[in-house]
Amino acid sequence: MTAPARSLTPDPVLVNGVDTRALMATVNAIKDDPGLGACRFRARNTWLSGNHNRSVVTGFFGARQEIAHAQTFTMDADEPAILAGHDQGANPVEHLLHALASCLTTSLVAHAAVRGIEVEELESELEGDIDLRGFLGLDPTVPRGYTAIRVAFRAKGTTENLARLRELAEFSPVFNTLSQGTRVDVTVQAK
Amino acid sequence: MTAPARSLTPDPVLVNGVDTRALMATVNAIKDDPGLGACRFRARNTWLSGNHNRSVVTGFFGARQEIAHAQTFTMDADEPAILAGHDQGANPVEHLLHALASCLTTSLVAHAAVRGIEVEELESELEGDIDLRGFLGLDPTVPRGYTAIRVAFRAKGTTENLARLRELAEFSPVFNTLSQGTRVDVTVQAK
Repeated sequence: MTAPARSLTPDPVLVNGVDTRALMATVNAIKDDPGLGACRFRARNTWLSGNHNRSVVTGFFGARQEIAHAQTFTMDADEPAILAGHDQGANPVEHLLHALASCLTTSLVAHAAVRGIEVEELESELEGDIDLRGFLGLDPTVPRGYTAIRVAFRAKGTTENLARLRELAEFSPVFNTLSQGTRVDVTVQAK
Repeated sequence: MTAPARSLTPDPVLVNGVDTRALMATVNAIKDDPGLGACRFRARNTWLSGNHNRSVVTGFFGARQEIAHAQTFTMDADEPAILAGHDQGANPVEHLLHALASCLTTSLVAHAAVRGIEVEELESELEGDIDLRGFLGLDPTVPRGYTAIRVAFRAKGTTENLARLRELAEFSPVFNTLSQGTRVDVTVQAK
C-alpha cells in the first residue's frame, strides 16, 4: 500500500466561512516581518460621458509583491435623473456606503472567526446625510460631504457572541478612514 | 399650417454630456427652497460567507421625497486568497477608491459643464496606503485605515480649461468626507 496522497497546503479550518488557518498564517508572517503588512491598493477610472464613469481594479501591492486579482473587477457609477444622470450605476456616495458596509461586515466576521465566535447571519442597513447645497456650491457654510452615517447591523448568533461583535467593528479600515479622515492628494495633468 | 409640436420638457443643453439645463433647474429649485437639498443615501448589505458580502442600493431620500433608482444596483465585495477570500469582488478598500474616483470625476465634469468648460477626455489612477498591521491588531500604534490616497487625473482639453479643473475637485462629497472625516455610528442588534 502506498501512503495516502497529501495536499501541499494544509486543510482549511473554516469559522464563519473564513479559512482561519490561512488568515493566521498571514498574521504570523507579518508578526515575524512587519514590512510585509504595507499594502498599496489601486483603482483606475475612466469618464464615459456626463455623470457616468467606470472604475477597474486588477491587483494591488502587498507582502512586498504585486498581486493580481483572480479576475478584473469593473464598477460603474452614475447619477439618477434628478441629479442629471441616467442611473447606469449607483452614485459615488452610495458606493461609499457599500465600501463601509462591506468593510465593517468583513472585519466583524473575520475577527470573530479568529476568536472562535460563530456568526450565523449578518446584515446591515446604512443611511448617510448629505446636504446638496454643499456640493452645488450654494452655501460655503454647508459641508460638502457626509455629515453623519448610521450603520445598523442585525446578527444571528448566541447572545454572548453578539455582545462581542460591536467592538470588532473598530478594526475596519474603511470605518477608520471615514471616522478619522485621511490625506487625499489630487493632481490634474494634460493627457 | 399648424404650429410645430413642442415637447413638454425643454430640450437638454448638453455640456460634457451633462444636461446643464436640468442641473441648473435643480440648483435654482434648491436656491429657492434650501430644504430641498437635504438627502439621505442608503445601502443594505448581506453577509454571504467568509469575506464575501453583497450590497443593494434601490433608492434614496431627496427633494423631500423617496426617489427610486431606475434599477436595483448590486455590488459584491470579497478579498483575495492572500487575505483569506475567494476574489468574488473588489475588496472594501478598493471599493472606497472607486467611490472617490467616481465622485471626483463627476464633480469635475458637472461643475465644468455648468461653467461652460468643455472636457474631452478624463481618466484617473488612484493608489492608497494601508498597513495591515492596523487591521490585524498587531500594533495599536499603526493606523487601521488609509494613511494617504493619491489621485492622478489625466485630462484632454485646452490648456486654459485644464488649469481650471483641479479646483473643481474640491466640490466632491466623497473627497470631502475622506479628507475631513465624518461621524459613523454603528449598532449591532439581534436578528
